[in-house]
Amino acid sequence: MASIKLNSGYDMPQVGFGLWKVPNDVCAEVVYNAIKTGYRLFDGACDYGNEVECGQGVARAIKEGIVKREELFIVSKLWNTFHDGDRVEPIVKKQLADWGLDYFDLYLIHFPVALEYVDPSVRYPPGWHYDGKSEIRPSKATIQETWTAMESLVEKGLAKSIGISNFQAQLIYDLLRYAKIRPATLQIEHHPYLVQQELLNLAKREGIAVTAYSSFGPASFEEFKMKHAANLTSLIEDKTIKAIAAKYNKTPGQVLLRWASQRGLAIIPKSNSPARMKENFESSNFDLSEEDINTISSFDRGLRFNQPSNYFPTELLWIFG
Amino acid sequence: MASIKLNSGYDMPQVGFGLWKVPNDVCAEVVYNAIKTGYRLFDGACDYGNEVECGQGVARAIKEGIVKREELFIVSKLWNTFHDGDRVEPIVKKQLADWGLDYFDLYLIHFPVALEYVDPSVRYPPGWHYDGKSEIRPSKATIQETWTAMESLVEKGLAKSIGISNFQAQLIYDLLRYAKIRPATLQIEHHPYLVQQELLNLAKREGIAVTAYSSFGPASFEEFKMKHAANLTSLIEDKTIKAIAAKYNKTPGQVLLRWASQRGLAIIPKSNSPARMKENFESSNFDLSEEDINTISSFDRGLRFNQPSNYFPTELLWIFG
Repeated sequence: MASIKLNSGYDMPQVGFGLWKVPNDVCAEVVYNAIKTGYRLFDGACDYGNEVECGQGVARAIKEGIVKREELFIVSKLWNTFHDGDRVEPIVKKQLADWGLDYFDLYLIHFPVALEYVDPSVRYPPGWHYDGKSEIRPSKATIQETWTAMESLVEKGLAKSIGISNFQAQLIYDLLRYAKIRPATLQIEHHPYLVQQELLNLAKREGIAVTAYSSFGPASFEEFKMKHAANLTSLIEDKTIKAIAAKYNKTPGQVLLRWASQRGLAIIPKSNSPARMKENFESSNFDLSEEDINTISSFDRGLRFNQPSNYFPTELLWIFG
Repeated sequence: MASIKLNSGYDMPQVGFGLWKVPNDVCAEVVYNAIKTGYRLFDGACDYGNEVECGQGVARAIKEGIVKREELFIVSKLWNTFHDGDRVEPIVKKQLADWGLDYFDLYLIHFPVALEYVDPSVRYPPGWHYDGKSEIRPSKATIQETWTAMESLVEKGLAKSIGISNFQAQLIYDLLRYAKIRPATLQIEHHPYLVQQELLNLAKREGIAVTAYSSFGPASFEEFKMKHAANLTSLIEDKTIKAIAAKYNKTPGQVLLRWASQRGLAIIPKSNSPARMKENFESSNFDLSEEDINTISSFDRGLRFNQPSNYFPTELLWIFG
């Protein structure tokens, strides 16, 4: 299984399983099946609201001897409401307890957005809104304060590696000025409609591995009915992608994943179906020609879906650009 | 003359004169003429390499009794190589000496990019490259360190207001967490090909005035022969813009400026010709209809020219996105 050597010294599997939107009632089963399929990296988050069930799936697989803890690479993320320096360690400990783990292999700042603390006893996961409805309340935590607290997780053994998600260039440069531990990974939205080649180049130069999320593009966001996605062709249904897939005797989904992994990114597709799970997991056992890679890259139109203001238009929580 | 009330309490003229690319040999004359034309705001920078000459133009106008210092609003900017906290005050003092002034009305961080110090005796202005040719060397200064030094300029009376330029949303949110003095203005590239409505909304919500630069779009960048500008219609030559201009009996340039100022932005057009200077200065004495404003806004294609990596492609100094 291909892996990526992180700047922290650890190896990260290049193909993982994404846990966003895995429903609670099937989550333990899905994670268990994914481990049986061969997945070793699981990409979770407080915000996904399913860490207890993820942990149950992992525990079952370990109990049945399918895998050992040290063979897994468990990723989780710090939610926006826990950016205050003194909130980081307690919430990581809660998240670890939810998973039934002693440490995360990788722990990321989910968004560079510091929101006011919401106690887990009030609402968990807390989401974007202070009141659970519409009020957005910033906290006073700087990214430096949060990153310093993230670094102490490594010192305390609660996370082997730490990283960032949804950060853009300017904030990455700034973070690299004060980081004692450099981010091991950067997780970003990435698909043929949002190629971000220059950001990938920046990460490469700085020794930061990149993980792609939403590799299938608009497909991940259909349920949100975003205006700018309304007239878009699904990448899975696109004629060009389908033609390339036919040429290699692969599915369009495999082509989209291979396009990303062949360009050096880690990928974290999600599927609740065992057949699709397997298909995604095996997406790296063929190579696209350079010409086909370039054809797919030429879909780029800088089209971003996971911009919070797309979800909450009236509040204009605009964080990209 | 229309002005914008800054969060620092000062009034800033909404129409100013931009000093980028004003040649040294005519600069004093140009500034003097601009003052005679009625301009009171001058937007300069260390990097423009003409602050001595700008100061000569100002001094002549003051000496001749055309204007008093306190009627002017002089803007300058901190260059990347002076981001280290202890470098800020000395360079501002040098810049003030070059202008022949005691204080700037507004002083901005030019780019959120901290580069290693280059002594003014070695090269001034220092530009992007440590060696004057190709080597880019970052400094260790965080934006917080630089902003703290900027704040001390206000305390010391060297700048009445301070602000930022070329900052994107994530870094602005972060800066607002630690700023004791909030930025009074944000200066950004802004034209119909790069509307950035959401960033303007963010600034408005946060009480930060926005100044538009490169209001004519590609016209400001023709000499750099950027690839992505090669097949673009000049906005000044565009049929739609020309038709709107004809309707109001104005020039296309005036329409482009009024489109920006009517949306609440400050503008800083540059011209070396007295006739054009006057034309730009008088761009606010008519109103575009809302329909025409929307038509012009619909040119938006997120097209940015002033991305440093556009100038230095091999070095990939990618700071936007």
